Amino acid sequence: MKFTQVESFRGDANTIRIVGHRGARGILPENSIIGFDFALSIGVDLLEFDVLLTRDDVPVITHNHELNGAATRGPDGRFINGAGARVASLYFEDIECFDIGRLNGHTDYGRRFCEQAQLDGVRVPKLSELLELVSQPKHQRVCMMLELKSDPEFSADRTAKEKLVSVVTCEIKKAGMEDRTLLHSFDWTLLAECKKQVADMPTSYLTQLKQHAEDIGEETSLHSTPDLRPPDISLPDEVKKAGGELWCPHFKDISKADLMRAKDLGLCVAVWTVNEPDDIDAMIDLHVDAIITDYPGRVQRRLSDRGWLWER
Amino acid sequence: MKFTQVESFRGDANTIRIVGHRGARGILPENSIIGFDFALSIGVDLLEFDVLLTRDDVPVITHNHELNGAATRGPDGRFINGAGARVASLYFEDIECFDIGRLNGHTDYGRRFCEQAQLDGVRVPKLSELLELVSQPKHQRVCMMLELKSDPEFSADRTAKEKLVSVVTCEIKKAGMEDRTLLHSFDWTLLAECKKQVADMPTSYLTQLKQHAEDIGEETSLHSTPDLRPPDISLPDEVKKAGGELWCPHFKDISKADLMRAKDLGLCVAVWTVNEPDDIDAMIDLHVDAIITDYPGRVQRRLSDRGWLWER
Repeated sequence: MKFTQVESFRGDANTIRIVGHRGARGILPENSIIGFDFALSIGVDLLEFDVLLTRDDVPVITHNHELNGAATRGPDGRFINGAGARVASLYFEDIECFDIGRLNGHTDYGRRFCEQAQLDGVRVPKLSELLELVSQPKHQRVCMMLELKSDPEFSADRTAKEKLVSVVTCEIKKAGMEDRTLLHSFDWTLLAECKKQVADMPTSYLTQLKQHAEDIGEETSLHSTPDLRPPDISLPDEVKKAGGELWCPHFKDISKADLMRAKDLGLCVAVWTVNEPDDIDAMIDLHVDAIITDYPGRVQRRLSDRGWLWER
Repeated sequence: MKFTQVESFRGDANTIRIVGHRGARGILPENSIIGFDFALSIGVDLLEFDVLLTRDDVPVITHNHELNGAATRGPDGRFINGAGARVASLYFEDIECFDIGRLNGHTDYGRRFCEQAQLDGVRVPKLSELLELVSQPKHQRVCMMLELKSDPEFSADRTAKEKLVSVVTCEIKKAGMEDRTLLHSFDWTLLAECKKQVADMPTSYLTQLKQHAEDIGEETSLHSTPDLRPPDISLPDEVKKAGGELWCPHFKDISKADLMRAKDLGLCVAVWTVNEPDDIDAMIDLHVDAIITDYPGRVQRRLSDRGWLWER
């Protein structure tokens, strides 16, 4: 089965595609409508973002199962560092009280993004807001890499996983976006649930080897992702066996041999999260299908200088 | 005489203002409508840009008197490196054929901006397009630092200077923007002409000492600017004597004593072009009124982390 949205993520002899990570986290607040808007405005038509359910089952776009204290201010204007605002315990109207427009530069996380614009009055968006944005006729080529996030407290709770998949995919179908969305996760049990509930939508399998430490200040995904250890096993073969259409390795985890194997298996390969010019060059040299980045302008610059295309 | 637009550029005990240099050159093509739009979208409400006249006397927004070959492609899609597209010799309809959406990364100039988004179909804007953008009600607080550029071939041509001032200021007044625009230049004879023609508009005097070399790949302004050499003369006193409301020194040229003197004289002080975090910090420590930058997000981050405001 050939999915049009998978083909949108696939490169060709002259093209490497660019995926805006959480919009364009290096430039604008992550997982915000203004960030998605910016990525779209510069011709980045593939968007990656993260979805969780609130207590009242509203799919919202945010990365951590507890709102990131380094990027979230409460109604008093102060960063909520460590205050534990767990998305699954909050109603959407509670979440609307938080402002995600700035980073706390006195945290390890904040120090990573030293040129992100600082704004006030930016809210955690509902998934439906982004679906509405990309429904505009001018955005008809836009495709979405929708990451389903696993709350570690629900890791053994099958009902919670069924509900997450059901609520999110219903919303996508209601918006008519099932042909423009990839279901993407570190949690392969969630992706298996997707295969069961919506076999007509493609899945994208994230992998991250334990030796490549977590990104500083991020919530770990290692609790939910399978512990795959090459060379005894082949990551692309595991993704294929699981039923994936995309393989999404950490960019440090991929070899030329793995890439060739993935291509032989018909997988599309998108690497995350590639921000430094040397790493961008290495991924271009490898000739992956797509580069997921916080700095889409940097990737455009490297591709442009080297004579590659990124748009279709 | 107190000009409201000058007060918009003035900081206070808690505020240092941010001026988007050529829009936001580090992030988006310089002097483009999409770049100005981006700056406005992140709350940067002071815009710096450059104006020249075409052969048919259309004020256009571009920096060099010959279109910058490292940032301009011809109708064949190739960078015009050294092809000498002189603005004063071209009709506006000729200029519309050039695309300013990308940088040539194989030039010294291109290498300076390694994360600028790369776009196709971006045109040199008319001044009137920007005036229309900032006329929108949501942009009513926006003020403009309009740099009048001197064509070196016209350096002794008084008629050409009179015409430049006359055409540009008429356009500003026609748009009702005379209370939101500063007339800004390296060429103090042009500013004297402004004083003569439009005494009801404030002027901003750029200075650059010869020992601080030109920015790489830029067209020099040293041909048109007075050769002022401290310590024998005081730059702020010279600006005041010339009738300026703003003093705009290169950030490496300003001392605490000069800043204090400028403030004593009632001048507003905006420094250019401050892009590196250490330099941004130094200008915050100095407590200038405004920082002109290619990377407004970086300046917002430093100000935010240090508890400063930048908006009013």
